Amino acid sequence: MNKTTQNMKDICIQLLNDRGVTIDDIIDIVYDLQKKYVPTLTRDVCGEAIDRVLGKREVQNAILTGIELDTLAEKNLLSEPLQSLISNDNPLYGIDEILVLSICNVYGSIGLTNFGYVDKVKPGIIGKLDAMGKATNKCHTFMDDIIGAVAAAAASSVAHNAEED
Amino acid sequence: MNKTTQNMKDICIQLLNDRGVTIDDIIDIVYDLQKKYVPTLTRDVCGEAIDRVLGKREVQNAILTGIELDTLAEKNLLSEPLQSLISNDNPLYGIDEILVLSICNVYGSIGLTNFGYVDKVKPGIIGKLDAMGKATNKCHTFMDDIIGAVAAAAASSVAHNAEED
Amino acid sequence: MNKTTQNMKDICIQLLNDRGVTIDDIIDIVYDLQKKYVPTLTRDVCGEAIDRVLGKREVQNAILTGIELDTLAEKNLLSEPLQSLISNDNPLYGIDEILVLSICNVYGSIGLTNFGYVDKVKPGIIGKLDAMGKATNKCHTFMDDIIGAVAAAAASSVAHNAEED
Amino acid sequence: MNKTTQNMKDICIQLLNDRGVTIDDIIDIVYDLQKKYVPTLTRDVCGEAIDRVLGKREVQNAILTGIELDTLAEKNLLSEPLQSLISNDNPLYGIDEILVLSICNVYGSIGLTNFGYVDKVKPGIIGKLDAMGKATNKCHTFMDDIIGAVAAAAASSVAHNAEED
Repeated sequence: MNKTTQNMKDICIQLLNDRGVTIDDIIDIVYDLQKKYVPTLTRDVCGEAIDRVLGKREVQNAILTGIELDTLAEKNLLSEPLQSLISNDNPLYGIDEILVLSICNVYGSIGLTNFGYVDKVKPGIIGKLDAMGKATNKCHTFMDDIIGAVAAAAASSVAHNAEED
Repeated sequence: MNKTTQNMKDICIQLLNDRGVTIDDIIDIVYDLQKKYVPTLTRDVCGEAIDRVLGKREVQNAILTGIELDTLAEKNLLSEPLQSLISNDNPLYGIDEILVLSICNVYGSIGLTNFGYVDKVKPGIIGKLDAMGKATNKCHTFMDDIIGAVAAAAASSVAHNAEED
Repeated sequence: MNKTTQNMKDICIQLLNDRGVTIDDIIDIVYDLQKKYVPTLTRDVCGEAIDRVLGKREVQNAILTGIELDTLAEKNLLSEPLQSLISNDNPLYGIDEILVLSICNVYGSIGLTNFGYVDKVKPGIIGKLDAMGKATNKCHTFMDDIIGAVAAAAASSVAHNAEED
Repeated sequence: MNKTTQNMKDICIQLLNDRGVTIDDIIDIVYDLQKKYVPTLTRDVCGEAIDRVLGKREVQNAILTGIELDTLAEKNLLSEPLQSLISNDNPLYGIDEILVLSICNVYGSIGLTNFGYVDKVKPGIIGKLDAMGKATNKCHTFMDDIIGAVAAAAASSVAHNAEED
């Protein structure tokens, strides 16, 4: 990884923290997703997988773009009708899912299945982000999908490594 | 829909039946997926949505191709190493998920989430297909994903129609 | 098409105009793409195909989101490093291509090939948008991909209709 | 890379040769695609990029599956209507493009644009494969897309490396 990419990774981790999500929160989800398939799984292995995912340029670009749109929507700085579509998390909007596809696919198509699952079941921090986005003036339209996709891609990376050992 | 497409739809429904799946089995999954979001949902509405999905050319092409590969694998007619990858449903194979993306996406990105969920939870006939594929000399590597994707796309179609009413 | 979707279509056409692109500009590209495959092709048929594409919710959502990001970048209203990535049309950014995939895929996978081609060859208005984005303080990072994707999807729709006749 | 993956790569290179394509043929395309963006580009750098692409499991799976379908179609061993769809390279089939998406995307979304371009322009060996598929009893429905996608992904890998230096 070159300097720019390392720097971008640090910026993304800081952004996730600023929006209320720690790496530990994401480890919780990855561990639960893969524990039954990889009995020897440790939280450290999950953390390393998340680190690999966050080191990818396409993941960093998706994180920067999605969080920017959430933040602008919170500040009411988007034009209509986009402002309403994003701030209301309109189910027909769908760009949040499109954007995070580039994250899910970073370790092959297995990531998609994991993403679909966590997006529907909303475990741990994802459920909290979703509830906060609906109940308060916070906007998490992109954020919950970003976290789900990072967890899903990290789970796929864990699975690939376990298979190939 | 022109004659060829109608004809192709009938061939696909017949193929699904030959491989042990009825439209009613798929309705079960669509109904369970959407019931909580659309309280007035009926099984007929689910059936119509499945019919719309099966009327699309890209869906028909994916069904024909996937079932052919399953059937050839059952008859041991594929070359190695592909024969083993498909007949063992190797988790690193992944072409089954790729192939059915064209089905999931037929009504937008919402289908992906539903697909990921059913692919992981394996409700109804999908769990049966998966278990049969593992326990017997049947090969359902593509079939379970095909059914999951058709159900997911139909659920998205139901959701779109409900939103837009 | 219901009222909201019709209304959204009108908003999108207005936005395209505001950013310097007319439906006629898009017809030029679609006509050139399909003329050699469909000898009887007319500009009216191309215009109807563009109209169908612009009537789709996922297309409208992608247009609204992409143009918003371009406009915010022009006004220097995005946070760094996203502001620089978008205003410099950084070749490693890639979210512009991801975003418009939902447009390309609206009539199946054939749209992808057409999109890749126009994105590289940059015919007509697409080349002008690209040159303006590089030479002036205009930002067309998303806009050129949006127009390419709408043209590509419309060309696919023309091709499908011609095949199925 | 572990032993299985290395072994799979050798099998794929052999298969490409058996179907009439050498690594040198693919280098020609990658070199032409990237020469104008990377003036210092050498054929060796292109060859290394192709090697990286062929080392990926999802690429190997797509190659094995696509070539198997082409070969079965040549031998008239597929069921109808799939046999006719593949052996005639029907433009509405589209599964060939879907299958090779997993190859194109291996180095991010930039690969898609390159793929769309070569799929349309058909440079070098791709044009020859396409012409042979149409004129003889050879079936190259998947093969030309596979070569285009491998070249497109390798070109993206070259571009990424050049940007990040």
